[in-house]
Amino acid sequence: MKLDELARQCGEWLRGSGPESDIVISSRIRLARNLADFPFIRKCTNQDRVQIERGLRERIQQVDQWSALSYVDVDALDEVDRQFLVERQLISREHAEAEGARAVAIDTAETFSLMINEEDHLRIQVMHSGLDLQAAWKQMDEIDDLIEEGITYAYSQQWGYLTACPTNVGTGMRVSVMLHLPALVITRQIEKVFRSLQKINLAVRGLYGEGSQAMGDFYQISNQITLGQTEQELIGQVSDVVPYLIDYERRARDFLFQESKKDLHDRVSRAHGILCTAQTISSEETMHLLSSVRMGVNLGLIEDLEILTINKLFIHTQPAHLQKIRGIELDTADRNIERAHYLQRHLRPTNDDAQRN
Amino acid sequence: MKLDELARQCGEWLRGSGPESDIVISSRIRLARNLADFPFIRKCTNQDRVQIERGLRERIQQVDQWSALSYVDVDALDEVDRQFLVERQLISREHAEAEGARAVAIDTAETFSLMINEEDHLRIQVMHSGLDLQAAWKQMDEIDDLIEEGITYAYSQQWGYLTACPTNVGTGMRVSVMLHLPALVITRQIEKVFRSLQKINLAVRGLYGEGSQAMGDFYQISNQITLGQTEQELIGQVSDVVPYLIDYERRARDFLFQESKKDLHDRVSRAHGILCTAQTISSEETMHLLSSVRMGVNLGLIEDLEILTINKLFIHTQPAHLQKIRGIELDTADRNIERAHYLQRHLRPTNDDAQRN
Repeated sequence: MKLDELARQCGEWLRGSGPESDIVISSRIRLARNLADFPFIRKCTNQDRVQIERGLRERIQQVDQWSALSYVDVDALDEVDRQFLVERQLISREHAEAEGARAVAIDTAETFSLMINEEDHLRIQVMHSGLDLQAAWKQMDEIDDLIEEGITYAYSQQWGYLTACPTNVGTGMRVSVMLHLPALVITRQIEKVFRSLQKINLAVRGLYGEGSQAMGDFYQISNQITLGQTEQELIGQVSDVVPYLIDYERRARDFLFQESKKDLHDRVSRAHGILCTAQTISSEETMHLLSSVRMGVNLGLIEDLEILTINKLFIHTQPAHLQKIRGIELDTADRNIERAHYLQRHLRPTNDDAQRN
Repeated sequence: MKLDELARQCGEWLRGSGPESDIVISSRIRLARNLADFPFIRKCTNQDRVQIERGLRERIQQVDQWSALSYVDVDALDEVDRQFLVERQLISREHAEAEGARAVAIDTAETFSLMINEEDHLRIQVMHSGLDLQAAWKQMDEIDDLIEEGITYAYSQQWGYLTACPTNVGTGMRVSVMLHLPALVITRQIEKVFRSLQKINLAVRGLYGEGSQAMGDFYQISNQITLGQTEQELIGQVSDVVPYLIDYERRARDFLFQESKKDLHDRVSRAHGILCTAQTISSEETMHLLSSVRMGVNLGLIEDLEILTINKLFIHTQPAHLQKIRGIELDTADRNIERAHYLQRHLRPTNDDAQRN
C-alpha cells in the first residue's frame, strides 16, 4: 500500500464505531521495547541504527500473518509524507523529525503500527475506535509476543523492560484514550477536571501529543507511571477514570441542552454553516468548528451527517493530508483554500460523493 | 389597506430596480409645510392639533386620484405598529414618539407618505428606488400642488415656506439618497469621504435617520441648507455628488475584487452561511451580514439570490416587522429566534416559498 492510498482511506480508530464513541474517539496502547544487543538510540552509531532497522524489518517480515503490512522507510520520505504519518497518528512527531535509519510498519486497517528507531528501538502502538482498551491490549500482547519470538528484548529481572527514558521503564507501556470534551470546555469545567486527573498521576495532552494545544476539544488521557504495576493495573488506572469523564461530559451536554438549547443549537448550526461556506479556512478554525458540529450530531441537532464523516474531516483537513489528497505541495494560503473546498465537498448535503474520499 | 397587509408587501423603493440600484438604495425628497391658520406644532393646543389633523385629512380625502390611500391614525396605534411604520421609513421616529392627534397617509405602492402633525403640520415624503431624484421631484411637485389647491400654506414672500425649525425654512425641502457602501467601509475610506461631504454642507446619517448607527453599511446623504436656493439647485447639490460616491464605492469593490478576491468571497460566503444557519441572531448582526451578502450578489460571488430578496430582508427582519409578520408580540430573545427562522425561510435555496413574504 502506498501512502497516497492510505491518505484516501480511513483508519479503524476513526470509524466512530466502538463503545462510547460519541465521546471516546480512540483507545491506544503503546509499548517501548529495545533490542538487547544494541545500545539505546542516543548512544547508537549510524551503523547501529542501520542494523537495528534491518534486524527488526526482517523479524517483522518473517511473521506470516503480517504479509500485507506496509513497511515505510521514514528516512527516505519527504517532509509532507512524514507529516502525513504524524497527522494520521501512525508515527510520533519525534520520529518524523529524527534523523538516520528509521521506519514504520503499518497494518492495512491501521489498528497498529511499529515504529523502528524512535526514542526506543521499537515502539508498538495499537489503536482502536471508542473505549476498547481490553481488546487493544489483547492485540498488543499478541503483537509483542510475535516479535519477541525472533529477537531478544533488553529486559532486567529487577526493572522489567529497559527503555531509553527512565519514565518508560518496567512495562514500557503507555495507555491512553482520546476524548472529545466540547461541553466541558464550553461550561469551563475542563481545567478543574484536568487538575483532578493530574492528582492521580494521569497526564492530559492534545490530539497531537505533548505540548500540542487541545485543538478541536480533543484530550488524550494517559498514565504517567510505567513501573511497579502490571499492565492490567496500568490499563485499569486509565479505564477506571474514563467512565467518570464520559459522565461529566454527558452531564455538561445535558446541562447545555436543558439550560440553553437554543444557544447550543445556534452554535452548532452556525459552525456547520461556516464550514459549508468558507472559501478559505485555517486548520485551527476548522477543528474548532468541527468540534461543535461533532457534538451537534451526537445531540441530534444536526441531521444527515455521520460521525464517521466528521471524524475523517478532523484528520483529512490537516496540512499534509490535504497535500497528499490533492497530490501537490501547497503553501499555507493555498492549503486554507483547498481545505475550504474539501470541507464543502464533504459537508454540503447536496453533494453525492460526500463519502467518497 | 391594513398595516398587516403592508407588512407582507414590499415598498416600491425597496425593489432594487431603479438606476444604480446596486449602490443607491433609494432617492427621497421631503417637504415641510404648515397651515397658515394655525400656530406651529409646539405652540398648538390639543384642540389645534385635532383641527389640523381633521383639516388635512379632509383635504387629502378630497383628492380624486388618492382614493386608495391608506389613512392611519398614528395616535391610535400601539407601539409595535408605530415602530413598524418607522422601520418602513413611512414615518419618522419623532412622529412615532410624539403625542396627540397625528396621522400618516400612505399610497399603495409606498412611493409617498404624508405625515400630519410631525414637527410641522405636514411633511410630504416621496421615495423612489435607485438614483431617481428628478422623478421623485416631479411626483413631489404634483403632490404639493394637489394639497395646496384646497388649503393655504404658511408662506412669506421674503423667506418662502415657514417651518417650525429655522433649518427647514425656505424650500422646506430635504433631498436625500440612501447608499450602500460596504467596500468603502472595508477599505476604511468611509470617514475620509464623510469629511469631504461635510465640507460641502451635506449631512451623513444611518438608515434610520439622525443619531442612528450606520448599520448594514447604509448611509443617507442629504442637504443641510434649505434657504436661498431653488428646489432644483438643492437637488443638484445632492445629485451632483452621488456619481462620485458611486464611483468611489465601485473602485473600492474593484480593488477588493482584484487584490483579495478570495478573502472577499470568503467574507461574503460565510456571511451567507451564517444567515442561513443561525438559530438566533440580533438585528445588528443580521444587517452586518446582509450587507456583505448584498455586495456579494452585486459582484456575482453569490448566485441564485435576488437583490430584491436581500433589500426586503433588511427591513423585514427589523423588530416590529417580525412581530407584525408573526402576528404576536415577541421579546428580544424570541425576536432573535424568529429572525433566524425568517432568514432561513427566505435565504435557503431549497425553500420553495422564499419569495412569498
